[in-house]
Amino acid sequence: MGREIRVAAAQMGPNQPTDKRSVIIDRMINLIEKGATDKADLVVFPELAFTTFFPRYLIEDEAVLDKYFEIDMPNKDNEHLFKVARDAKVGFYVGYAELSVEKNIKRRYNTAILVSPEGHIINKYRKIHLPGTPSPVQGYARQQLEKKYFSVGNLGFPVVEAFGAKIGMAICNDRRWPETFRVLALKGAEIVLIGYNSVATNRHTGENEEELYTYHSNLTVQAGAYQNANWVVSVAKAGTEDGSPMVGSSVIVDPNGKLAAQTKTLADEIVTHTIDLDAAEESRRLMFNFEKNRRIEEYGIIATQRGATR
Amino acid sequence: MGREIRVAAAQMGPNQPTDKRSVIIDRMINLIEKGATDKADLVVFPELAFTTFFPRYLIEDEAVLDKYFEIDMPNKDNEHLFKVARDAKVGFYVGYAELSVEKNIKRRYNTAILVSPEGHIINKYRKIHLPGTPSPVQGYARQQLEKKYFSVGNLGFPVVEAFGAKIGMAICNDRRWPETFRVLALKGAEIVLIGYNSVATNRHTGENEEELYTYHSNLTVQAGAYQNANWVVSVAKAGTEDGSPMVGSSVIVDPNGKLAAQTKTLADEIVTHTIDLDAAEESRRLMFNFEKNRRIEEYGIIATQRGATR
Repeated sequence: MGREIRVAAAQMGPNQPTDKRSVIIDRMINLIEKGATDKADLVVFPELAFTTFFPRYLIEDEAVLDKYFEIDMPNKDNEHLFKVARDAKVGFYVGYAELSVEKNIKRRYNTAILVSPEGHIINKYRKIHLPGTPSPVQGYARQQLEKKYFSVGNLGFPVVEAFGAKIGMAICNDRRWPETFRVLALKGAEIVLIGYNSVATNRHTGENEEELYTYHSNLTVQAGAYQNANWVVSVAKAGTEDGSPMVGSSVIVDPNGKLAAQTKTLADEIVTHTIDLDAAEESRRLMFNFEKNRRIEEYGIIATQRGATR
Repeated sequence: MGREIRVAAAQMGPNQPTDKRSVIIDRMINLIEKGATDKADLVVFPELAFTTFFPRYLIEDEAVLDKYFEIDMPNKDNEHLFKVARDAKVGFYVGYAELSVEKNIKRRYNTAILVSPEGHIINKYRKIHLPGTPSPVQGYARQQLEKKYFSVGNLGFPVVEAFGAKIGMAICNDRRWPETFRVLALKGAEIVLIGYNSVATNRHTGENEEELYTYHSNLTVQAGAYQNANWVVSVAKAGTEDGSPMVGSSVIVDPNGKLAAQTKTLADEIVTHTIDLDAAEESRRLMFNFEKNRRIEEYGIIATQRGATR
């Protein structure tokens, strides 16, 4: 083993709309403590970890919507989580709904932050690949209104040096787009962190598709890891929130695209793995030596043409 | 079912260096006939189908090297294959080593052509992602000298309308690079055809890695299919050529990234599947609606920066 970092995927079970924020934070503190017991350097939480996945609802009252959002971070609701992690000397990655107020202009983002073992916010990412629709679709049992509530992230795909590694930040639907992993890898990422909330039923027909959608969730991160010679830590909020089932399968994926660790439940559950950063060395030197093998002369259309020619 | 095309993956077992060309062509004719019996519209052969995978050797005598290459297509060695396919009204995709002589300048390409049921060459592709090294690596049991023998393809990633579909053309190592599938999908591809020769042992250590490398072969095409809402037909030359083992697992992959068909042997073997081109419709309209979801403003680095920042 060469350079090492011990990472915990801290899957969360569902957050019901009626759950008190303090109850959710207590569960997260419990996961931080489990991570510390497992000697994790870094605990990775899901997307929108503090709340239910509210983009499933059409919320027209701005005061109601604001309650799902954080303005400052940390704040009085979650400062105890930061304190417990700092006392345990554990860093963490966590997703939340961010309300940014600048010059009296409100902007909302689907955000994640990386927090150091000393409790400092190292970097912030705002989700770029927002799924869903900007307005409700008639006939859907549950909506996916991220495009209504959130602005597209304006901080790029960040790669930050921390925990002795180069760490790339992404959220949920970003993992389905190979460009995410490629941009992060080109910026030098060795580990990519992802939190997600992914439905387990077809939004249109309501049919249970847990097996297929779990397969898709794994496929994208396994391909992203292999094709970029990265590790990936991809963490679910899982189980059924307010009648809406979500997939689990939080995973730690090695640079061969193989699962090094995987959760087994749809509830709060932690899996931990010691990442060997040098495990990707042969792949980076040979098969996925970008400098020797990428043919950027042929890739222009990827960055210049948004839609497909039909 | 909507628009349909019936496709056969015509996996080939090994071609030994001592095999007569006519024996290899007879095996391919046999696969065409099996495809016709299975009512295939299109039979997909591997990369470098007519010869052994000669880039494993260091060949310094140009006259010896030339024997692996085709100048005209069809030519007297393989015109019978074209005739049998035409008589059976079956189209095919086939890879071969191409020697192009223009103005007395010889250029060599790793090429594939798509041939219509009427026996016409519809389009040609020259491999862009050449793997391996431009000169022999000391200590390797077998070399991978594609970068020595072949020029990088100069015909782009082609998408052609044929067989009632938009067909994308790629070869072997192209499938490991997500840019290949993305460029083809942006050009409108509904089916991507790929032939390959992929080793089953670690080139450096000689260790058997058939399971891992088969997994990688599947992973790349399954992710390529899912993330681009395409079908993929990916076909091996399999088995052990001159002591060098290659993986099999020729597959037809649906737009969910699931295997619709897969070979079971490492020998000549055909699997056939009726492709429903409209099966990708929901995916293209929602999850992988490129126009609504791709964020090209963030992808510039993919086409402008070749290597990774370290």
